[in-house]
Amino acid sequence: MNDDNTTTIAIDAMGGDYGPKVTLAGAALALERRPDTRFLLYGDAELIDEALKEHEALAAASIVRHCEMAVAMDAKPSQALRQGRHKSSMWRAIEAVKTGDAMVAVSAGNTGALMAMAKFCLRTMAEIERPAIAAIWPTLRGESIVLDVGATIGADAQQLIDFSMMGGAMARALFGLEKPTVGLLNIGVEEVKGQDEVREAGRLLKESNLERIDYHGFVEGDDLGKGTVDVVVTEGFTGNVALKTAEGTAKQIAGYLRDAMSRTFLARIGYLFARGAFDRLRDKMDPRKVNGGVFLGLNGIVIKSHGGTDAEGFAAALDLAHAMARYDLMNKIAADLQTFHDRMSDAPLKVDESESAGQ
Amino acid sequence: MNDDNTTTIAIDAMGGDYGPKVTLAGAALALERRPDTRFLLYGDAELIDEALKEHEALAAASIVRHCEMAVAMDAKPSQALRQGRHKSSMWRAIEAVKTGDAMVAVSAGNTGALMAMAKFCLRTMAEIERPAIAAIWPTLRGESIVLDVGATIGADAQQLIDFSMMGGAMARALFGLEKPTVGLLNIGVEEVKGQDEVREAGRLLKESNLERIDYHGFVEGDDLGKGTVDVVVTEGFTGNVALKTAEGTAKQIAGYLRDAMSRTFLARIGYLFARGAFDRLRDKMDPRKVNGGVFLGLNGIVIKSHGGTDAEGFAAALDLAHAMARYDLMNKIAADLQTFHDRMSDAPLKVDESESAGQ
Repeated sequence: MNDDNTTTIAIDAMGGDYGPKVTLAGAALALERRPDTRFLLYGDAELIDEALKEHEALAAASIVRHCEMAVAMDAKPSQALRQGRHKSSMWRAIEAVKTGDAMVAVSAGNTGALMAMAKFCLRTMAEIERPAIAAIWPTLRGESIVLDVGATIGADAQQLIDFSMMGGAMARALFGLEKPTVGLLNIGVEEVKGQDEVREAGRLLKESNLERIDYHGFVEGDDLGKGTVDVVVTEGFTGNVALKTAEGTAKQIAGYLRDAMSRTFLARIGYLFARGAFDRLRDKMDPRKVNGGVFLGLNGIVIKSHGGTDAEGFAAALDLAHAMARYDLMNKIAADLQTFHDRMSDAPLKVDESESAGQ
Repeated sequence: MNDDNTTTIAIDAMGGDYGPKVTLAGAALALERRPDTRFLLYGDAELIDEALKEHEALAAASIVRHCEMAVAMDAKPSQALRQGRHKSSMWRAIEAVKTGDAMVAVSAGNTGALMAMAKFCLRTMAEIERPAIAAIWPTLRGESIVLDVGATIGADAQQLIDFSMMGGAMARALFGLEKPTVGLLNIGVEEVKGQDEVREAGRLLKESNLERIDYHGFVEGDDLGKGTVDVVVTEGFTGNVALKTAEGTAKQIAGYLRDAMSRTFLARIGYLFARGAFDRLRDKMDPRKVNGGVFLGLNGIVIKSHGGTDAEGFAAALDLAHAMARYDLMNKIAADLQTFHDRMSDAPLKVDESESAGQ
């Protein structure tokens, strides 16, 4: 497939809180924006065909593949894997990437089950120990990539370096950068100089002087919103907390703003005048626009959409999938990793004792 | 001292980016709000006396204690401790708490040096392995306490429980709550069920059924801004990243808002009408209002102000110090810890295997 100029995306049509109604409406929106897309729609054929009646163009650009089951949003990953392998819409969408039928798979289903199935079906890349989930982070300078936002807890220096490579490749693919800047998330308090693995990863990244990424050094939590670097690397626990803290803070401030703007008569008048500006702000802060966590480090790209998103949000995840496929993310990652590992084979790992905190 | 109804606060007058100019102006503001405060001002007597000329009431409520040196903002903690012990303004302000001359010490100086000196001078409480830094976090429901925001990296289950106790005592002292709710920060992704130590701390907190705190369970990053619980407990790396991520996100959104409001003529008119509302919002988001990290777990209270803050921000740290001293935080913490340790002595630690992730 894809010997023509189309991009084929496999969709787990049953995933998410609203199933085919939202996933297909999202696909229809994405198709309008990128008419070269083709879809493989996995799920209950009866439900999908019914929903497709409202989306004629989408129906013409899609192949429906019936699946007899869907993974429940609250299923345990191990249970989903046991029961849903080979027959669930989630598994079969992933499998389409493995067989080459699709260039990327997208699901709004259960994150844990999706990661478990993606790992089992696609396997991790030869040079990679663990996959990561990368998020697009809106910043004052545009957008950055942050990983890992929750695939696994903890990461050693080698894994942080792998994340740096993969994030760098994604930034080159998505933002069209020649040599993206990469920072390691750390804390700046003097008496605690950061986790040993973060410091070691920093030392190795600095020494290896890579051609395809520009290692910036350590960054702190407030550098995320500033957009200090193109790629921020951290382990999954911290990354997940940071992501949700930022989302929560944005909601909190939106709440303050709504409250302030409706409290007095003058404020309400002011709101009417400045309505265009508020719409612009809402647009900037719209979490749907940056919907989509990219699973990196597997032999194929899988994208997780928020489960509760609407058609616009799901379309954003499909836009991301389209970009990842077109710019050949997989091969970029593989090439970068190869370069780094070749270089490192001459330089054995060692910890620089002189940098140790003098506790 | 303090046999009358006054509250005595020791101030490292030399700390912070601007020294006595800001610290004394802040103290003058705090004194206006709480006339029962008395200050011990540590630092260069000549500089302090000069600055006090502008603050008559403060001069009358203060005793100046000359110190021959000040700790540099960029000094390494070990170096500051070696050179500044017994003679720096920072050390002597802390020492005033040890001797009972003051009820609490406040410094806007170097965080690492302050923690190192506070630990060395005051020592950790008998029941506590490690101190923590607690921050006040503005939420949609009011304010919460978050700890540890950067005293140390990593924490085992027992340390997380100690943080819960100390944070609970602080919430009772500061918010006047009978039984504050406490949550452990975790990540909600299904396939990675959180760090073992977080899960174990959760189990122990649930089982011990404490009288003085209401253990809520796990919370996620977005619960911080919501104010889901009164006290959020986590280890220092994650807490520091979360705090700075929230600060960065708030600045980022303020930037978007400024940009949106100045972009069009209508928006600028709207801004004029809604000016009161914007002032209100700015007030809500003012980081100076929640200035002050409280060092908990030592035999005495030390409060760290932001180094770059202005007089209003330093006054907020002094208000916090006043509240901590008046409500007898030290004894509340000691009593809570005693209760918990008595209770736990009957129930040995064990990990509940049935909760393990089925990887």
